[in-house]
Amino acid sequence: MNSKEMNIAELAGMVGGTVSGDAGMTVRGFAPLEAAGPGELSFLVRKSRIEELRASKASAFLVPLDIEEMPNLTLIRVKDPNLAGAIIHNAFLATPFEAKGIHPRAHVGSDCRINHEVSIGPLVVIGDRVTIGARVSIEAGVAIGDDVEIGEDTVIKANAVIAYGSLIGKRVIIHQGAVIGSDGFGFATDERGCHVKRPQVGIVRIDDEVDIGANTTIDRAAYGVTWVKSGAKIDNLVQIGHNCVIGENSILVAQVGLAGSTILGRNVVMGGKAGAKGHIHLDDRVMVAAGSGVHDDQPKGAMIGGYPAIPIRNWTKSASIFVKLPEMLSDIKRLKKDLALLQGKIDEE
Amino acid sequence: MNSKEMNIAELAGMVGGTVSGDAGMTVRGFAPLEAAGPGELSFLVRKSRIEELRASKASAFLVPLDIEEMPNLTLIRVKDPNLAGAIIHNAFLATPFEAKGIHPRAHVGSDCRINHEVSIGPLVVIGDRVTIGARVSIEAGVAIGDDVEIGEDTVIKANAVIAYGSLIGKRVIIHQGAVIGSDGFGFATDERGCHVKRPQVGIVRIDDEVDIGANTTIDRAAYGVTWVKSGAKIDNLVQIGHNCVIGENSILVAQVGLAGSTILGRNVVMGGKAGAKGHIHLDDRVMVAAGSGVHDDQPKGAMIGGYPAIPIRNWTKSASIFVKLPEMLSDIKRLKKDLALLQGKIDEE
Amino acid sequence: MNSKEMNIAELAGMVGGTVSGDAGMTVRGFAPLEAAGPGELSFLVRKSRIEELRASKASAFLVPLDIEEMPNLTLIRVKDPNLAGAIIHNAFLATPFEAKGIHPRAHVGSDCRINHEVSIGPLVVIGDRVTIGARVSIEAGVAIGDDVEIGEDTVIKANAVIAYGSLIGKRVIIHQGAVIGSDGFGFATDERGCHVKRPQVGIVRIDDEVDIGANTTIDRAAYGVTWVKSGAKIDNLVQIGHNCVIGENSILVAQVGLAGSTILGRNVVMGGKAGAKGHIHLDDRVMVAAGSGVHDDQPKGAMIGGYPAIPIRNWTKSASIFVKLPEMLSDIKRLKKDLALLQGKIDEE
Repeated sequence: MNSKEMNIAELAGMVGGTVSGDAGMTVRGFAPLEAAGPGELSFLVRKSRIEELRASKASAFLVPLDIEEMPNLTLIRVKDPNLAGAIIHNAFLATPFEAKGIHPRAHVGSDCRINHEVSIGPLVVIGDRVTIGARVSIEAGVAIGDDVEIGEDTVIKANAVIAYGSLIGKRVIIHQGAVIGSDGFGFATDERGCHVKRPQVGIVRIDDEVDIGANTTIDRAAYGVTWVKSGAKIDNLVQIGHNCVIGENSILVAQVGLAGSTILGRNVVMGGKAGAKGHIHLDDRVMVAAGSGVHDDQPKGAMIGGYPAIPIRNWTKSASIFVKLPEMLSDIKRLKKDLALLQGKIDEE
Repeated sequence: MNSKEMNIAELAGMVGGTVSGDAGMTVRGFAPLEAAGPGELSFLVRKSRIEELRASKASAFLVPLDIEEMPNLTLIRVKDPNLAGAIIHNAFLATPFEAKGIHPRAHVGSDCRINHEVSIGPLVVIGDRVTIGARVSIEAGVAIGDDVEIGEDTVIKANAVIAYGSLIGKRVIIHQGAVIGSDGFGFATDERGCHVKRPQVGIVRIDDEVDIGANTTIDRAAYGVTWVKSGAKIDNLVQIGHNCVIGENSILVAQVGLAGSTILGRNVVMGGKAGAKGHIHLDDRVMVAAGSGVHDDQPKGAMIGGYPAIPIRNWTKSASIFVKLPEMLSDIKRLKKDLALLQGKIDEE
Repeated sequence: MNSKEMNIAELAGMVGGTVSGDAGMTVRGFAPLEAAGPGELSFLVRKSRIEELRASKASAFLVPLDIEEMPNLTLIRVKDPNLAGAIIHNAFLATPFEAKGIHPRAHVGSDCRINHEVSIGPLVVIGDRVTIGARVSIEAGVAIGDDVEIGEDTVIKANAVIAYGSLIGKRVIIHQGAVIGSDGFGFATDERGCHVKRPQVGIVRIDDEVDIGANTTIDRAAYGVTWVKSGAKIDNLVQIGHNCVIGENSILVAQVGLAGSTILGRNVVMGGKAGAKGHIHLDDRVMVAAGSGVHDDQPKGAMIGGYPAIPIRNWTKSASIFVKLPEMLSDIKRLKKDLALLQGKIDEE
């Protein structure tokens, strides 16, 4: 996919690694152990898998610090081969931005400020007064509403929607079919049981380096801002209600759902399909197990699971006992019976 | 966002409220207590938050009936300030429909009947024999199939899909990326384990004043109609299977899923991520807790939760005991041991 | 919807059935008992519903083998009337492919190989080097990336996205808004807690006769292939993580979610909203109850439910006892008290 060549010393420098073997060797790609071929760099995550490294056809390897020098092999020793591998792989794939301009079959509204160095695909629709920074790439079929601002180096993939007034930061990736700025879900109910829509007059703000997954939906605030802070990574089919705040570097795995006005701190992680009710606060580094439902505020670093979510240790223990409920029930019945018999015997005496 | 001015007496009349203070004052906007500025109306939901009202910069307030006159403040007393606020806020935001016509870069099929007073955006595709009523607004990228009917004052937002034959009522809002009329999921399996698609020849019918959330999917009926009745409000990423019926004013919060042929009565509420199996009936005013799974018919007004869902009181109690399972298990073990000891003692005697 | 006529003998032959009554009769449509009219064929699934057959206006019936001849009625006896009905209904609806060509308002990239016998709708965007087979139908607003291959007789519905490099088989149906080939969700985290995107350089491969539901998302592999094998049927709003493999004829009901690298065998069935963690293996014919969460490998034919999923029999029993937890807890308390009393009595003696 690319013909870039980089030498081992240069790559080691990029990730703070130390080289043993041929530091002057050049490699031209990065791949996992079983897929890498000659001329490529690969990586070993754990010492226990050393045999897979020996079987690999790669020419050089990122390895953890506890791997010793190996004769005839070129190694870059690093603290975290996963992280170093991601950094190096990105470096191999990086290409200068190729500005294709605005496709003649895109539609651009009035009073927009669009950097000349952009790629805007066919059948993109851009509203009025939209600002688009340098090196932004917008794929086919994307719809962008009025008064949207999009920062530099952001990528918006096919058929995503960015509704009016949304503020999108730099180096953001919005995947296919995602909807940013749909109306929040708020109603007041009258005496006949009919629901009157409460206007949703706020916006969505997405900060730098955020990823938004395919077909994910992020509602605009009722008033104010629904805010996804920098570095947060959001997977596919996630729902974020109005006025939520997602803290820096938080991770929401696929199909997570947050009701309105819930606040997540920094580096919170919610596993797939987890949910949180509205108006609660999950403080920094809270971890929520997949499939859990959070009903209450959580302190910094809490690790929780279950429905409603409780400390993960408790949940794991209780969940493992769940299967014993029939036995426990029959034990209790038997105990009651035996105890009654015993009481009878004693009372007789 | 608007420069409309309305006076307090007029607004009070709109919501059946009584004024104390300056009934002739004019206000030009509506916002919550902390956000409202001079010249704006705000609202207090509960008496306990009266200090927030005192701190607010708003010029007048919707308040509940248990708030007494306050010197120097202009109040509109109403039964439900939430509801009154929604009605008034909508009044402030209401603007005459501005018909932009059919954008030259929209594509319209043959034999359509489209009211002259509509706004159909660029890159909209409309099939053949489509009927569109007055004051309908269709945003960029929407795809509408053949033989669709869309009632007056309906709004269809960017990149939504309305598949062939769907009937959409008046004052409906269909949010971005929603899919109305995808095929139902029905198969018959042959002896080799291969699945033969069962044709899905029905339609979807959406009645007046329904809201459909972003990226929500509503399947067409196998035969007949999948039917969302008037006033129902459906949030984002909801799945409604073929032949379901959603009763008037029912509310489905985000990520709810209904299997096929399930019938919901009027004013049913299903919390976020709740699910219902197919072919069951949830009668009027049933409330299902977020994250629950409903397996059985439910009588009018039932309040349920859990998986499978049981009466919410029972579920809440049992869920709170779940964390005690390890303790209960060890108690039972100890009881068995102690009882055995005791039996031994007695038998010895 | 069509004016095709077929005679009973011909239809019986198509499904291996035996006729009693008028084998020469012609019928011109297929519908369920309550909807069918004169001149149409209907079907009875179970003998117990025979009265509905008697009340039907249909002219002939598919019936199971345990239904005897009925005077004055034309019956086709088959092993599985559901399956036979699906086959016959499809036969009635089948029409020769009508190639409408490439709409002038579609956009096609360079170096594509597109069969002349296709229907590509308005506002479709097709990338470069795309291959499209005979009788493929692509609806409005679909975005297809570079280097995609699409096999014969495949249908791609409105606003779906097929990202670059995806391989789509023959007779596949991809419903509205589905996203094939979004990036997998993979990051490495640095010492500051920032997440570095791991490049997702693999593809998605969809084999023949697969159905993909509306707004479903299937992520491309990190390396290699995310693979949906032939005959698999996937419902709406399903999430499939990178490097998953879905075996032949497996069924994933709406809102199912699979984390990365999970492997499903043949004819696996996952009920609505079920989830599976990553890197596990569900062997052939595993059945997962709706709403369950699978944490471990499962052997062939396992039937499981719950969170985490356990054998369905155990889960059903335990779930039915869940409501008794408060009673069990108070029983245990009472037992402890009573036993202590008894111990006291005995010790006194």
